Amino acid sequence: MNIRKNVVILVGGVGGAKMAVGLANILPPDALTVIVNTADDFEHLGLHISPDVDTLMYSLSGLVNPSTGWGLEGDTFQAMEQIRKYGGPDWFNLGDCDLGTHLVRTHLLNRGLTLTEITQYLCSRLGIKQHLLPMTNDQVKTILDTDQGELGFQEYFVRERWLPAVHGIRFEGSSTAAPSPEAALALETASLIILGTSNPFLSIDPIISIQGISERILKATVPRIAISPVIAGKAIKGPTVKLMTELGVEPSPVGVAEHYQNLLDGFILDKQDAALCDKVEGLGLRTAAFQTYMASLADKITLARQIINWVEDSFG
Amino acid sequence: MNIRKNVVILVGGVGGAKMAVGLANILPPDALTVIVNTADDFEHLGLHISPDVDTLMYSLSGLVNPSTGWGLEGDTFQAMEQIRKYGGPDWFNLGDCDLGTHLVRTHLLNRGLTLTEITQYLCSRLGIKQHLLPMTNDQVKTILDTDQGELGFQEYFVRERWLPAVHGIRFEGSSTAAPSPEAALALETASLIILGTSNPFLSIDPIISIQGISERILKATVPRIAISPVIAGKAIKGPTVKLMTELGVEPSPVGVAEHYQNLLDGFILDKQDAALCDKVEGLGLRTAAFQTYMASLADKITLARQIINWVEDSFG
Repeated sequence: MNIRKNVVILVGGVGGAKMAVGLANILPPDALTVIVNTADDFEHLGLHISPDVDTLMYSLSGLVNPSTGWGLEGDTFQAMEQIRKYGGPDWFNLGDCDLGTHLVRTHLLNRGLTLTEITQYLCSRLGIKQHLLPMTNDQVKTILDTDQGELGFQEYFVRERWLPAVHGIRFEGSSTAAPSPEAALALETASLIILGTSNPFLSIDPIISIQGISERILKATVPRIAISPVIAGKAIKGPTVKLMTELGVEPSPVGVAEHYQNLLDGFILDKQDAALCDKVEGLGLRTAAFQTYMASLADKITLARQIINWVEDSFG
Repeated sequence: MNIRKNVVILVGGVGGAKMAVGLANILPPDALTVIVNTADDFEHLGLHISPDVDTLMYSLSGLVNPSTGWGLEGDTFQAMEQIRKYGGPDWFNLGDCDLGTHLVRTHLLNRGLTLTEITQYLCSRLGIKQHLLPMTNDQVKTILDTDQGELGFQEYFVRERWLPAVHGIRFEGSSTAAPSPEAALALETASLIILGTSNPFLSIDPIISIQGISERILKATVPRIAISPVIAGKAIKGPTVKLMTELGVEPSPVGVAEHYQNLLDGFILDKQDAALCDKVEGLGLRTAAFQTYMASLADKITLARQIINWVEDSFG
């Protein structure tokens, strides 16, 4: 079987976007589906903001700000300056061009289009040929139980800069949310399912908290793999390790593999963690160790190629 | 009686803003109340836009773009560029800084504040000391009956560039709208009421279409005057003359004076129209003729001073 035929990757924001870009560079556009977390979406200043969808959209179109991994390259912040003059909420930085995206999305949502329809439309306008799919058209919201009380994702992540200690995470709405029909179909027809290098608790868990998604992954007969977002006890970016520690999960690739365990057939670690392969194999998973840190486009492409080749060799 | 104590001027956008700026330069801040048309307000891309309120706010704060008379000086249009990339609606141009205003206003409206409260707050943040008051907190909408069917104000004015011929105008919601308490109180305690150099049909009529406003002007015992927005058969700007012709009203200061007649005690024409003073006086109004075209700040101040002096001399 051709595992390159319909590769489906689940992602959150910046980390997952890097892997998606790598895959986009080695697969035919029609053979890559990216299912993206929308539990970080929020209403801000009357706008519907989908941070992870935007990060993927800007990354796949090549418009992303390369120094941050999110936002648009060369964007300006005039509107924010004016909002600041009014003493308006300025904890979530909105670029002027980025505002154009939020305004059009909000406009189309108000007209009754689904987030999936809107994402497909915006992607087509930006020339993106891969399938970028929000995990659901329903509302799911990541709520963190912290030492400062309950916080929405953006409040925790952006406003409080992930400083509060987290005791628990829940995904409000996920028990009644359905995957978008497009995401469900992609999983059913997938030739390979990848859980991307995103935060397992904040980016991947909200996606698999939707039963219609996790069940389809559980039932899938094609290879299902994950790539560790933890390298040598550290996360490339963001609160992954801090969060794992606070939640009592071993902050290592092994902890990540255990967390996903029953959804997976294979697990990729960074070569710095190659010594942990045995432990992960003890969970019943096949493993490989590559350079998973992606600094350049070449790194992204190399890793994508290694992953695909390894799956072909190990599961073909 | 001191007619300078509490001057109330009714205005629309750019034309009325010039007069308000002139008055603001010769009166103590607390002695000037500007009641502004909100029947051009509209929802666009999910934002509540109050074009006339903004024009007055930007004019009184000195932030206005001097070349257009509306919008913010030095504003950029990055968000619009992005909206255009998505094929979004671009007929209403939104500056990036200007968007900051719309976002904060919409945010505060969604939190339940009234347009008056929000306007007062935004004005205070911009250092405006005069009283700028929306005519109402209720929704009133200018609807034009044209040869292209019914059009909302912005569709007629901006999108269609006032090209369609107008057969009639109505102000949806005005029969149930109440003046804001602040606007009602200002009219009741006014020492002088001025109908500004704005379009009588599109800017002043929506204000006086609210019974609680027109009745207070009718009952007022203080001088009530208007300044003709028509000079030598032409409007400084916008569709005033075209509209008067289409509606069968004489496109001259006399036509304007007749239109307002029972609300007024005095009427100011441009000196180019001085020959028409007799005709206007035949309507029972006192008249004066000044240079009413305001190209510079000095022009605005001079006209404001002449008006106030004339009212003191004629009605004192």
